[in-house]
Amino acid sequence: MMHSILPRQALRLLHTVSPPSSSSSSLSITAVTAAATTTRRAISSSQLSIDPLTSDQLNSLHSKLPPKETLKFGKTFAPHMLQIYYNKEKGGWQSPTIVPFQDLKLSPASAALHYGLECFEGMKAYKSINDESDLRLFRPELNMKRLKDSMARLAMPGFDFDPQELIHCIGKLVRLDQDWIPSGKGYSLYLRPTVIATHPYLGLSPPDELLLYVITSPVGPYYASGFNPVRLTTDNPYVRAWPGGAGASKVGGNYASTIMPGALANARGYSQILWIFGEDEHVTEVGAMNVFFLLEKENGNRELVTPPLTRGDILPGVTRQSILELTKTWGEFDVVERSITMPEIQDVGSRGRLIEAFGAGTAAVVTPISAIQYKGQDIEIDAPGDLTKRLFSDLMDIQYGEVEGPKGWSVRI
Amino acid sequence: MMHSILPRQALRLLHTVSPPSSSSSSLSITAVTAAATTTRRAISSSQLSIDPLTSDQLNSLHSKLPPKETLKFGKTFAPHMLQIYYNKEKGGWQSPTIVPFQDLKLSPASAALHYGLECFEGMKAYKSINDESDLRLFRPELNMKRLKDSMARLAMPGFDFDPQELIHCIGKLVRLDQDWIPSGKGYSLYLRPTVIATHPYLGLSPPDELLLYVITSPVGPYYASGFNPVRLTTDNPYVRAWPGGAGASKVGGNYASTIMPGALANARGYSQILWIFGEDEHVTEVGAMNVFFLLEKENGNRELVTPPLTRGDILPGVTRQSILELTKTWGEFDVVERSITMPEIQDVGSRGRLIEAFGAGTAAVVTPISAIQYKGQDIEIDAPGDLTKRLFSDLMDIQYGEVEGPKGWSVRI
Repeated sequence: MMHSILPRQALRLLHTVSPPSSSSSSLSITAVTAAATTTRRAISSSQLSIDPLTSDQLNSLHSKLPPKETLKFGKTFAPHMLQIYYNKEKGGWQSPTIVPFQDLKLSPASAALHYGLECFEGMKAYKSINDESDLRLFRPELNMKRLKDSMARLAMPGFDFDPQELIHCIGKLVRLDQDWIPSGKGYSLYLRPTVIATHPYLGLSPPDELLLYVITSPVGPYYASGFNPVRLTTDNPYVRAWPGGAGASKVGGNYASTIMPGALANARGYSQILWIFGEDEHVTEVGAMNVFFLLEKENGNRELVTPPLTRGDILPGVTRQSILELTKTWGEFDVVERSITMPEIQDVGSRGRLIEAFGAGTAAVVTPISAIQYKGQDIEIDAPGDLTKRLFSDLMDIQYGEVEGPKGWSVRI
Repeated sequence: MMHSILPRQALRLLHTVSPPSSSSSSLSITAVTAAATTTRRAISSSQLSIDPLTSDQLNSLHSKLPPKETLKFGKTFAPHMLQIYYNKEKGGWQSPTIVPFQDLKLSPASAALHYGLECFEGMKAYKSINDESDLRLFRPELNMKRLKDSMARLAMPGFDFDPQELIHCIGKLVRLDQDWIPSGKGYSLYLRPTVIATHPYLGLSPPDELLLYVITSPVGPYYASGFNPVRLTTDNPYVRAWPGGAGASKVGGNYASTIMPGALANARGYSQILWIFGEDEHVTEVGAMNVFFLLEKENGNRELVTPPLTRGDILPGVTRQSILELTKTWGEFDVVERSITMPEIQDVGSRGRLIEAFGAGTAAVVTPISAIQYKGQDIEIDAPGDLTKRLFSDLMDIQYGEVEGPKGWSVRI
């Protein structure tokens, strides 16, 4: 099996290859080359225009906002949204606009609705604990980089936008709707940058028209009353991603195929699937999160393990990367990106050397794992463990501005 | 690696399993069970209502229809579309409506735009050569079965609709827009049934709201002036589908991840990718078509080979199935569904025993293959071959009502 090449690298190859003078394919060479060519019109935050609701409209909406304790993830949305259209004929990215949250008008032939040409990010905006007017994002550059990579993987044009320009536009949106950021530790405004292909064409080709939009949703703590450890299962015939697929990109199709298997696992009493891969049963992800294991080695040393990104079947999570970087600075145990298989987990579990396991992602920060079903048997794990609790606390302290984290982690907007 | 189980089988399992009384997952057991439960309100063609354009509007649109010789696939759409909403709170499928072709109004939080919860079909409506008022579909029951399977794979509710009811609604749509079916062999109205999750919820769960819609597009012959054989490449690091994924279903994500690799192959002078899988380099599909090889065996007998559906990584094509059934009735050569690897194709190619190769799909019927790049070398194949031409002709004769095919293949609407 050949190794995956990075999509941006791949798309850049198009510049170094002379297209043949003719092709029998229905896929137009011109379209491909245009899609990969540097965008003529860039995303420019200085061109941002805002069409806000009136104060009366905002007050009326705010009065209907559910009490923050009752917010459900992803069901309530703030009053405005950011929209940036890409149109090849009009020269690339159009002027960003902030408009009231509203239905999109999409051609029923839009490529996003047929061929899954869609990618997204998950981010949060936080109110600092000590100063509610101090609004923060957490490592937004990493989300921007991943969004650009996802767009390139989908052959979307315009993926070479300047991340700072989009972050600046997102900052304006968050500021405008700051009354929808609930106060208090654990509360935040969940941000959902999304790019969809609006090109109304049923042929299979790189799209000429896109809509990049950002909607936002006030959310409460994932664990309202203390940690709620999850029980996982590996016993299912489904596979989330594959080397050479799109598993390292945050694209719609990765999620579509996991929902039915997840629902079946749920009906059997397991919260999430621990996704494994291949004959030797590598662990890859848990549900839609990255996964970590704290092990005790034969020599008594401890090792924090997460699967590596090298096979191209694991999403490069922002929380994942932050946990790796943070724990390395501690210097208290080995921190290793390496393959870990279910037989190894079963083995260390049976010998009392599986100290902790947890998922990592933007929504929950960390999620303690209390059991893993493997070949019909549940491997039980103490949860929540000390490391899980410490990471949860340390990351939140940085996100909410209580502790000054590494440079560039907590970004004022 | 465990084998994939059929999605409908899997969803039915939900009925035989008692949900646990509580679950720590964010995925609601109630939602899962409801999604899998038999729909209370079924799709009913007797409830179809039609909101047509006026004669003047239709005449005006028809005058703008490009000459049939200049039609491009999937760019021109007929004046009306079919819409059927599914809403769990309203009891299931709503009344079908035929309305003017128009933009959809979708919440920016619709699950179809984030998690790829979307599936579709490709079909055609033909005018009989001998009687233009005699409109035909080709084996629509197979498309309906596959659409239902795709919906089940995506945990969409309402997948247990009656295929005949939807075919009846589609028939009404085609009749209404019959002036948009170009006349003549090779011309048709391409039909695109699509199901998208409109549920405005960012959680990962089976959707409660869907829109099933059908848009149609007048198309000309795929090969305007005789066959145009395609050159394929296997030399790329990408993989289309895998066992345990969704490759056997017609879902958006399967296509999203192929567009960038296809564009790169195109820029290197190859029309399509011949998708191979695994260490032993099984052939699976070509571009977005099934693939066939005609080989001469050691004993001089001929064998028509197409990869089997058993691994769950190949789309069960209607043209594929029709070619298998048709050639078996001929009894002129062996017709076999079996794995075929690139080393075998290279071997038979080098010994002059690779007689023909072609892709099979609704858009082009059959597509002759003239070369396959493998490990930097092009394996050349005579194209178009006699079998390719005969299948093209025989299938078209049935589709256009010139020859009475097997029972149920050419369906009057």
